Amino acid sequence: MAKVADKYLKVDPWAIIEEGFDPERNRTSESIFSLGNEYMGVRGYAEEGYGGDSLLGSYFNGLNEQLEIGNHYKGIIRSLRYMVNAVDWLYTRITVDGEQLDLAKSTISDYSRRLDFRSGTYQREFVWHLENGKSLKVTFTRMVSMTLSHLGLQQVAFQPLNFSGSVEVCTGLDFGIIHEERGENMWNSLHSAEEGTVTGIMASTIHTGNKLFSGFALQSPQPLQTTRIERDKFIGQSFSLKLSQAETTYYTKFVVNCADSNSTRTADELWNEGMELAAAAGKLDETAVLAEQADYWSRIWETSDINIEGDPENQQGIRFCIFQLYQTYHGDHPGFNIGAKGLTGEAYRGLAFWDTESYCLPFYMFNNPKAARSLLEFRYKTLAEAMERAKDVDCEGACYPIATIDGTESCDLWQHSNLQLHVGTAVSYGIWHYVKNTGDQAFLYSKGAEMLIQISRFYATRGQWGQRTGEYGYFGVMGPDEFQLMVNNNCYINLMAQKSFEYTLDTLRVMKEQAPAEYAEVVARTALREEELGDWSSKAQHMRIPLDEISGVYEEHDGFFDMPHLDIHSIPVTEFPLYSNWSYDRLYRYDMIKQPDVLMFMFLYSGQFSKEAKIANYEYYEPRCIHESSLSPSIHSILASEIDKHEEAYNFFEFATRLDLDNYNRNTREGLHTTSIAAAWMNIVYGFGGMRSDGERLSFQPTLPERWSSYSFQVLYEEVLLRIVVDQTTVKLSAISGGSTEVIVYGQQIKVDDSGTVLPLGEGMLAG
Amino acid sequence: MAKVADKYLKVDPWAIIEEGFDPERNRTSESIFSLGNEYMGVRGYAEEGYGGDSLLGSYFNGLNEQLEIGNHYKGIIRSLRYMVNAVDWLYTRITVDGEQLDLAKSTISDYSRRLDFRSGTYQREFVWHLENGKSLKVTFTRMVSMTLSHLGLQQVAFQPLNFSGSVEVCTGLDFGIIHEERGENMWNSLHSAEEGTVTGIMASTIHTGNKLFSGFALQSPQPLQTTRIERDKFIGQSFSLKLSQAETTYYTKFVVNCADSNSTRTADELWNEGMELAAAAGKLDETAVLAEQADYWSRIWETSDINIEGDPENQQGIRFCIFQLYQTYHGDHPGFNIGAKGLTGEAYRGLAFWDTESYCLPFYMFNNPKAARSLLEFRYKTLAEAMERAKDVDCEGACYPIATIDGTESCDLWQHSNLQLHVGTAVSYGIWHYVKNTGDQAFLYSKGAEMLIQISRFYATRGQWGQRTGEYGYFGVMGPDEFQLMVNNNCYINLMAQKSFEYTLDTLRVMKEQAPAEYAEVVARTALREEELGDWSSKAQHMRIPLDEISGVYEEHDGFFDMPHLDIHSIPVTEFPLYSNWSYDRLYRYDMIKQPDVLMFMFLYSGQFSKEAKIANYEYYEPRCIHESSLSPSIHSILASEIDKHEEAYNFFEFATRLDLDNYNRNTREGLHTTSIAAAWMNIVYGFGGMRSDGERLSFQPTLPERWSSYSFQVLYEEVLLRIVVDQTTVKLSAISGGSTEVIVYGQQIKVDDSGTVLPLGEGMLAG
Repeated sequence: MAKVADKYLKVDPWAIIEEGFDPERNRTSESIFSLGNEYMGVRGYAEEGYGGDSLLGSYFNGLNEQLEIGNHYKGIIRSLRYMVNAVDWLYTRITVDGEQLDLAKSTISDYSRRLDFRSGTYQREFVWHLENGKSLKVTFTRMVSMTLSHLGLQQVAFQPLNFSGSVEVCTGLDFGIIHEERGENMWNSLHSAEEGTVTGIMASTIHTGNKLFSGFALQSPQPLQTTRIERDKFIGQSFSLKLSQAETTYYTKFVVNCADSNSTRTADELWNEGMELAAAAGKLDETAVLAEQADYWSRIWETSDINIEGDPENQQGIRFCIFQLYQTYHGDHPGFNIGAKGLTGEAYRGLAFWDTESYCLPFYMFNNPKAARSLLEFRYKTLAEAMERAKDVDCEGACYPIATIDGTESCDLWQHSNLQLHVGTAVSYGIWHYVKNTGDQAFLYSKGAEMLIQISRFYATRGQWGQRTGEYGYFGVMGPDEFQLMVNNNCYINLMAQKSFEYTLDTLRVMKEQAPAEYAEVVARTALREEELGDWSSKAQHMRIPLDEISGVYEEHDGFFDMPHLDIHSIPVTEFPLYSNWSYDRLYRYDMIKQPDVLMFMFLYSGQFSKEAKIANYEYYEPRCIHESSLSPSIHSILASEIDKHEEAYNFFEFATRLDLDNYNRNTREGLHTTSIAAAWMNIVYGFGGMRSDGERLSFQPTLPERWSSYSFQVLYEEVLLRIVVDQTTVKLSAISGGSTEVIVYGQQIKVDDSGTVLPLGEGMLAG
Repeated sequence: MAKVADKYLKVDPWAIIEEGFDPERNRTSESIFSLGNEYMGVRGYAEEGYGGDSLLGSYFNGLNEQLEIGNHYKGIIRSLRYMVNAVDWLYTRITVDGEQLDLAKSTISDYSRRLDFRSGTYQREFVWHLENGKSLKVTFTRMVSMTLSHLGLQQVAFQPLNFSGSVEVCTGLDFGIIHEERGENMWNSLHSAEEGTVTGIMASTIHTGNKLFSGFALQSPQPLQTTRIERDKFIGQSFSLKLSQAETTYYTKFVVNCADSNSTRTADELWNEGMELAAAAGKLDETAVLAEQADYWSRIWETSDINIEGDPENQQGIRFCIFQLYQTYHGDHPGFNIGAKGLTGEAYRGLAFWDTESYCLPFYMFNNPKAARSLLEFRYKTLAEAMERAKDVDCEGACYPIATIDGTESCDLWQHSNLQLHVGTAVSYGIWHYVKNTGDQAFLYSKGAEMLIQISRFYATRGQWGQRTGEYGYFGVMGPDEFQLMVNNNCYINLMAQKSFEYTLDTLRVMKEQAPAEYAEVVARTALREEELGDWSSKAQHMRIPLDEISGVYEEHDGFFDMPHLDIHSIPVTEFPLYSNWSYDRLYRYDMIKQPDVLMFMFLYSGQFSKEAKIANYEYYEPRCIHESSLSPSIHSILASEIDKHEEAYNFFEFATRLDLDNYNRNTREGLHTTSIAAAWMNIVYGFGGMRSDGERLSFQPTLPERWSSYSFQVLYEEVLLRIVVDQTTVKLSAISGGSTEVIVYGQQIKVDDSGTVLPLGEGMLAG
């Protein structure tokens, strides 16, 4: 594994705290101190201008630019869309006595920053020692509102320690930022103006014409005499603040950003809408806004907190994860998805992967079902693009993209976009999983069934019959394990496609009986033919699932067991990451795997596999797994818990909650591992909590890591908010709200209501 | 196959003749009417300037530019080199009474052009009808000298049909040409000047700094009053010629081009060398130059002609092939290779492939052994680059590039450059084949052995041991059949690597005994260790050769027999070429093959496989072969002849000699299929002639296609020039020069000398 923590930040149960400024770690901290509210996200960069190394990143969910790709082959994409770096709405320049503040040049002391999980704010402060001997304490507070999604707030406060005088400030909106991966600015300015209290600017992306309005109004206890500053792609106001020794003076910038990535509005409409919102924002009371934000977060912690006693680092880590998950997504906006880095960086181009349904969906299903449904709605909204893509690759139905921001395939490595077929099965699994646990039959019948039909059509046309085996399967594919690049009959894809066919057929059968009108409608809308059902049934029935009957080990794909063996522990630490240090082709010719593949489906359909089967497959595949995906350790941890390898389970968990805080992969600088953050939640709830959500009822098999004295977590199940507390002797379940429900604990079905139920901790479940 | 002839050109045994000008076919004709002399090549474009669609292509062997590739993975190339379009040394502009000649705009009649195999010239003539009613016959003759490789000659003649007057001519050297694939000019001008009789210019490529000098001197029966014309990247002379009705007036441009692709000379040195050569060229006698050219070609036809009686189209076709092969390569310049399109176009970027050793080498071995050796010398000269490439891909020894102009890997599709391992085995096969048939032991000991050692090292480090089979082989490869993209244990690669190991070990064993000093030297130079020999021996011995023992069919790779079946005849004609009409990934998941793979090694090591084995494998693989490589039909034709499928053999041969003349693949416009041209020669000699060169002695098994009354061909074997004449009753062998030798005919060893031997045509060998 060769993963080592880089411990640096202070440990605190409710905040991330950095003391002292380290330019080397600046980008990493920019990622960690990111703020977001699903609608927009902003990295924790120094808004006053920083001459050192920084990724000044400001992103809007769905807002994209397009890159043309020089490709001549049919079926390989010709252009891709990516999340584009957008307006720097925090732009600030601060000058005192002609000297401009810049952490790269100025002398500073007492630097600290804090991301607070309860207030939902990011604060940064330090003392600036001017060349002329003056010392000024500067405090930046920022917030993006969880309740008013267009609203961002920035407060800049000054406390002169040894002088009285003034400070010159220029605050503005800057569309002149560089999209780092392209090394270019991707914006055309459309309009900018000062109207009443609002200073605004609007621009559009060069190739896609996505529009973005940004406007701000200022408040300050001191009356402000402002001068408008305009230049290319920029508008701002400059003013002077009087400073009195020891007293704190501040101003607050209320910013409204309105994005239009679908061109649903004209430029005029967007401008007027933005100006109106900004004018209203300028009248808001700052204290009330901050209080509303804190209130929002207190509700979140009430329903979604995980409490760990006896492990302050993981306590902080898991709260950071939950905080970032809510910041990234909470289902307020239809048509949004979760990029691999959320809204915190440009790596992976802001694109969403199968991670959404496979790793993120459970967190939302059991905390915020509206958000879970919204994620599935994204796939429904982009069904047309998936059907277009299926045609591109000579298939029928819907081929969901391996990487996307708006439903179009945006992965420019054909070996991934054309061979990795497991997004469609992730979507159908997601529908199944969501409906099973929320009972949202309405979604299934109105939208899910249509997606299932088109997904099944894709798998029925992409697959083929093996000439020797006579079985059905997928040739020329790459499964979740990206170290087996182009294989036949990947066991994961085959099994997941089989399940997808079966679920589609089950759904249609039940629907025909129970909701004949909706059934007739979906049949008509999809022009479904009776013989297709027979075809899918036959293909599911004859699906090839490569299995060594004697050992009980599933063969990851045809021929995997003959792949040359490599003792992964013999690889020198210096050769990691292998993608950078090994010849590309060399990665693909061993029995070494990058991430769980067989083990992944054993987790997803846990109830269908015996403990013996899990043991056999875990013991075969785990030693061959290099975990070069950040999603890998958590799945291994969950399975290890289940098969009583508690020490190993805890070891794999070590990377989960603090992957970014301790920068295990040394690439947090590029952005947070947002989808891995969701896996950290699963690691505790499905791993130590032993929750399983693929059976008829929700079940638990709690264990307690020996390092912990107790822990608790909450899940919303059938509209009941369940709280599970595990300590060294007992498991306590109670219904916090919503009445009562029944769940399975250690194999026994029990009723849980507000009076709570206490069970002894299962035997052998006190791990270690 | 869906290949249909597009018959257009006149049939003539010694020339290519086009009558009438068809703008639609202009690019195709430009390719067909290409001239070359190994050092340089020039397409048959209209040098007077043409406003229509044209590829104005002028190429120099080895002269290259570099393209950077945005790749971040180790082992995948970061830049590539390609043959760059160079100076238009034929540049001419012709004006009469203010009207400029341009075939795209002018009114013309009586257009014809002719490429003459005996004079080695290209002539184009037509009557130009001016707007003012004047008619002028214009004749362009050009030649690139086969004996003075720097020399090109252009004669432009004018015959006014109904007037007397004058013509204004501007003739020059233009470096302002566009490299079509890049859409840019790739030259920096270095110097231009008029010195004495010579007008010269020198430029260098932008990224690689390859230098090229071009200079010309003019001759004319009429004294020329010239005016120098200079502009960016251009120098020329303009002058006026007096015209008298019915009389022919002309001028001749003697051009010298000197390329320096290895920067072995300074700019000054190259300039001085070029100017000196050009001054000398300007003093040459045109008639003598043309006579020398004709003389050269008469010697070629004496030794290398193939004569076919009763089939004028194939007679013309095979002579065109032989003519183009000599034009492309004849071994006068060390360090040159044969690009897939020769020097006739920019497709395949002017790069050389394994075609050189696998398809072209036999033609040269049996016609011009010096050229054959020179081709192998190219691989020796580029051994350092191949060793560098092996390191790039985490291997040892030498990894010869799949596509190259200068020894560096220049294929930008990683799936080809990193997975197609068969160039190294082609080189070692080439060494073996060449040495076996020429007896050039000196080459083997001085250079061949060193290459063999480094090649074996590569195959010993790239291969792996199968965990289940316990056998050695290659995982993650693409064999010659490019429709199986990434497979394990491709039978061709495994078998060829086994042969390569064995030949290396045999060579070293014999060398150690017979040439101990050279043996010691090569061991020292390569730091060869004794244990490597044991390792190679073991790997050869345990090489996996997938074979179905019952049917005798070799499995193209592990799992091929399970690949889904496709009846290739069910593919609609409109879907060809599949690369353009099928989703890229779809090409790779059937039992459909693109070109011979198993059948290829059965041809290369013909003597090792029984006729029964060939029948079994041919009958299995041929119906699955789509022949989407132009190299495919000839190999099938040769094998079909051997297994008595004479009709089929002739059908496959149909595409061979006239692939470009009848534009079967509809892409001759991009350049000639130069390496396929070599396969056409093999098709006759190895196919109908039944020659085999992989045994202890050269052997023949002649058949006669029913459409032919007789045919003859010649091969140089052990310094004896053998002539084989096959007619409907007999096979006549005679030694034209070089004394006598022994060969095998119909299984019997016979002595052939200048008195000749006549045998009856073998039973069943009168095909059809």
